Amino acid sequence: MTAPSRITILDSTLRDGAQGQDISFSVNDKLRIVELLDAFGLDFIEAGNPGSNQKDAAFFERAGSLSLKNAQLCSFGATRRCNTAVEEDENIQSLLAADTPVVVIFGKSSLLHVTEILKTTPEENLRMISETVAFLKARGKTVIFDAEHYFDGYFADARGAAYALSTLAAACSTGADIVVLCDTNGGMLPSQVFEATCAAAGELPASVPLGIHAHNDSGCAVANSLMALEAGATHVQGTFIGFGERCGNADLTAILPAVKLKMGRECAGTLERLSVTANAVAEISNVILPSTKPYVGASAFAHKAGMHTDGVLKNTVSFEHIDPASVGNERHFLVSEVAGRTGVLDRVRGFAPELAKGSPALAAILERLKALEYAGYQFEAADASFELMAKRVLGTYAPHFMVTFYKTMGEFPAGTDGLPSTATIEIEVDGRTEIAAAKGRGPVHALDSALRKALVVFYPQLNDMQLVDYKVRVLEQKAATAASVRVLIESTDGHSNWTTIGVSDDILEASFTALVDSLEYKLAKADQD
Amino acid sequence: MTAPSRITILDSTLRDGAQGQDISFSVNDKLRIVELLDAFGLDFIEAGNPGSNQKDAAFFERAGSLSLKNAQLCSFGATRRCNTAVEEDENIQSLLAADTPVVVIFGKSSLLHVTEILKTTPEENLRMISETVAFLKARGKTVIFDAEHYFDGYFADARGAAYALSTLAAACSTGADIVVLCDTNGGMLPSQVFEATCAAAGELPASVPLGIHAHNDSGCAVANSLMALEAGATHVQGTFIGFGERCGNADLTAILPAVKLKMGRECAGTLERLSVTANAVAEISNVILPSTKPYVGASAFAHKAGMHTDGVLKNTVSFEHIDPASVGNERHFLVSEVAGRTGVLDRVRGFAPELAKGSPALAAILERLKALEYAGYQFEAADASFELMAKRVLGTYAPHFMVTFYKTMGEFPAGTDGLPSTATIEIEVDGRTEIAAAKGRGPVHALDSALRKALVVFYPQLNDMQLVDYKVRVLEQKAATAASVRVLIESTDGHSNWTTIGVSDDILEASFTALVDSLEYKLAKADQD
Repeated sequence: MTAPSRITILDSTLRDGAQGQDISFSVNDKLRIVELLDAFGLDFIEAGNPGSNQKDAAFFERAGSLSLKNAQLCSFGATRRCNTAVEEDENIQSLLAADTPVVVIFGKSSLLHVTEILKTTPEENLRMISETVAFLKARGKTVIFDAEHYFDGYFADARGAAYALSTLAAACSTGADIVVLCDTNGGMLPSQVFEATCAAAGELPASVPLGIHAHNDSGCAVANSLMALEAGATHVQGTFIGFGERCGNADLTAILPAVKLKMGRECAGTLERLSVTANAVAEISNVILPSTKPYVGASAFAHKAGMHTDGVLKNTVSFEHIDPASVGNERHFLVSEVAGRTGVLDRVRGFAPELAKGSPALAAILERLKALEYAGYQFEAADASFELMAKRVLGTYAPHFMVTFYKTMGEFPAGTDGLPSTATIEIEVDGRTEIAAAKGRGPVHALDSALRKALVVFYPQLNDMQLVDYKVRVLEQKAATAASVRVLIESTDGHSNWTTIGVSDDILEASFTALVDSLEYKLAKADQD
Repeated sequence: MTAPSRITILDSTLRDGAQGQDISFSVNDKLRIVELLDAFGLDFIEAGNPGSNQKDAAFFERAGSLSLKNAQLCSFGATRRCNTAVEEDENIQSLLAADTPVVVIFGKSSLLHVTEILKTTPEENLRMISETVAFLKARGKTVIFDAEHYFDGYFADARGAAYALSTLAAACSTGADIVVLCDTNGGMLPSQVFEATCAAAGELPASVPLGIHAHNDSGCAVANSLMALEAGATHVQGTFIGFGERCGNADLTAILPAVKLKMGRECAGTLERLSVTANAVAEISNVILPSTKPYVGASAFAHKAGMHTDGVLKNTVSFEHIDPASVGNERHFLVSEVAGRTGVLDRVRGFAPELAKGSPALAAILERLKALEYAGYQFEAADASFELMAKRVLGTYAPHFMVTFYKTMGEFPAGTDGLPSTATIEIEVDGRTEIAAAKGRGPVHALDSALRKALVVFYPQLNDMQLVDYKVRVLEQKAATAASVRVLIESTDGHSNWTTIGVSDDILEASFTALVDSLEYKLAKADQD
């Protein structure tokens, strides 16, 4: 028995991924992502369809100057059109113009598509495949053949299955370097993929690597890709964080660690850089990486239930399927009413190292936490408010300022400057009072501006600080406009970020509570620095 | 051969789902979700862990008054503690106090957990399982046994596998009604789940249904659940849109359609209501349903690539794995004006039946809709605002009142009545003006009260109307307190409910826009009645 082959990986974030809703890459975005994926260490980067849009053609012109360390660039396009000579097909010409070492060619493997969508004969479709592959091979390209709708074709009926297999054979007959089975509609289930991949593996020469290209319409794209590997495939196509048409493509950030850590197979990619690369791709694509994303999400190793927290502290494997560091991620303990003393102890360690599991002070913090959570507070994300709350319970916290009063006004119609709100505030610091006023886009914005104006007189270091995020959630929606709201504010001083929380049935008061905590936290932090 | 059994479904959105980061349900949220899931038609609703937190205990007190049509409520808790008599265990007492027909009991099936986390002996753990099940059976409960860490235990080594199986046998020996294999850490791959489920099916009496409870840490929770069904399981646990600790639980919105439409098995749930129920659960949980979510996401049947759009227009099965209507979702063409018109035409039919697909007025409504959606409006839920917007474009709408000005004031500290906000408003109706003022819990509440006070002078029928829901979503969070917000208001007059929307960078203005639409809609409706 020979050792199992190394698995090669093709990333299509820039091609299939670009077909996802809300995804739109500039040429510069694409160049940056190519550099990231190359540094991460993938084998193939499918970077665009030069025949289908100008932006991709422009990209390939500039991509020539990149010097890649690990990956080979691929252009992507269809087989020649029906009843057209390959060398006269414009799309094929644009593939040659893209000048990549690798070309990915897709052709139809489903009879329904051949007759109803392409409106040609099964025989002509086979010629389109074999002649296109032959043409590109003769020009020195590495050719990957994507058998579009292979699975739908295979499961249509016996004739469909035979035809689907014959399209693979057509690509092999003229030298395709890799043949890839595509679940283009994404509806397959894992056992179906296993069965149809076994059939393809039995049909093709062992020397031609078989690949899998899965979409996530059934929610099984990752599993389907892994099942194809178990059935004999040695090449996987996907996108870096699962972008793609409709429900997305198979997510490489979930496939790569499974292949390496769970199946013990060799494949491309530096797993320790998985999380940082996923975050960078998300950042460039201007999407928020879901915190629940397997392996790379911020919550992937976040423990909330008290029993889980307790277990992980005793033995990390008890509630973690892999070591978070192996994929460049981190363990987190969320503080919440379902978390017990252990979780709270872990979070107070940084500022109250003297506390132990049996300390009455720890019990007092947990009590206060539960009471606040019952009122609608949630400290999982609000690290800064948690620290201030705990210090208030411990009596180790002296406030830096007191607000003696504020007034806000909102007006319709707004004045000539378009700002409908005004706020006035008075604060006291060490017996000195300061009063300030400001206008704003709404009452919270005006109050925020007025408070800073007053505080900066005493604390010029607050000039470094700004708010980066503001979230509002209505708690008891049925109470309508008198409902309780929860406000979360994230702030930064350029060095670090912190989050604070406020809850009230007045959105102004909830926002103000979170704002005051945010400023207090910055001032306490500055005292220590 | 007997027919394959009907598959039963347990939803744990309110228990395991509540352990997801950023998820925090109020008691009212939980009651509404129970009603939704019952109407959708699931078998079991696991609604909380009464022993672990007060909020869940409060929920079960109120849940007694619900009359459910399809589902049975379940409480959830651990087996008795080590070396404690069952009847003296507080947690077991709180399960009895919850007074549900079904109790889900979790116990350890992994030797590592027994010895390192529980710190007890394998024999005592087996007694904890069998005695707890026996105790609850004797009190007339249906008992579901969750074999926590079954898969990790099974794959540890031969001794671990034998022990994992013996824990299942222990639960069966005293009458467990369903035995559920849990991938608590979520790291399993589909072929592992298949293998270990076959082993369990071989070990247990055929009369005891076997279940699967999967987590999504490997990105395979849906596939793992389906593989367990292929291996003989007939019960699935999951959460409605995949909420849960870390990367979430198995997502029932992807499992149910696969079971019914692809595997051809019988199971609970009205698939045609899948999308609407998923959206409602997301709304109540205040999370955004990802548009790429399989089956139920807004993009799940959205075609972007020109070739796909073209193919779908020729034959829908060419690029769709199922009929979107079968799961209550819709096909979208992201680049197609044609689709846009069809959708709008469908929505105006009720109040502008004279419009046709080619009407210039229809194009004008579509233009306005696109401009408003670009500004952050979203009319999918805001039916009443959509109707008013369309009528404004058509010129068929005469407003019932004009707001000439309003002023709001917020104060800290609040006055002796505890109401920190005041609003003054002036309106004009048929040349007559009315000015009114009111106090409130926040500026929006005060403004709402003042506006109604002024309007009721002219329109006493507004006394019948009340607001039932108020939702705020921050659109561009990075702009912090100056960010745009979207407000949705749901109103009722006892006969029907309607929803309106407002968007602005001033929360007051956004709320006011939605409020005015809501009142206008009621007045227009009263004109017709």
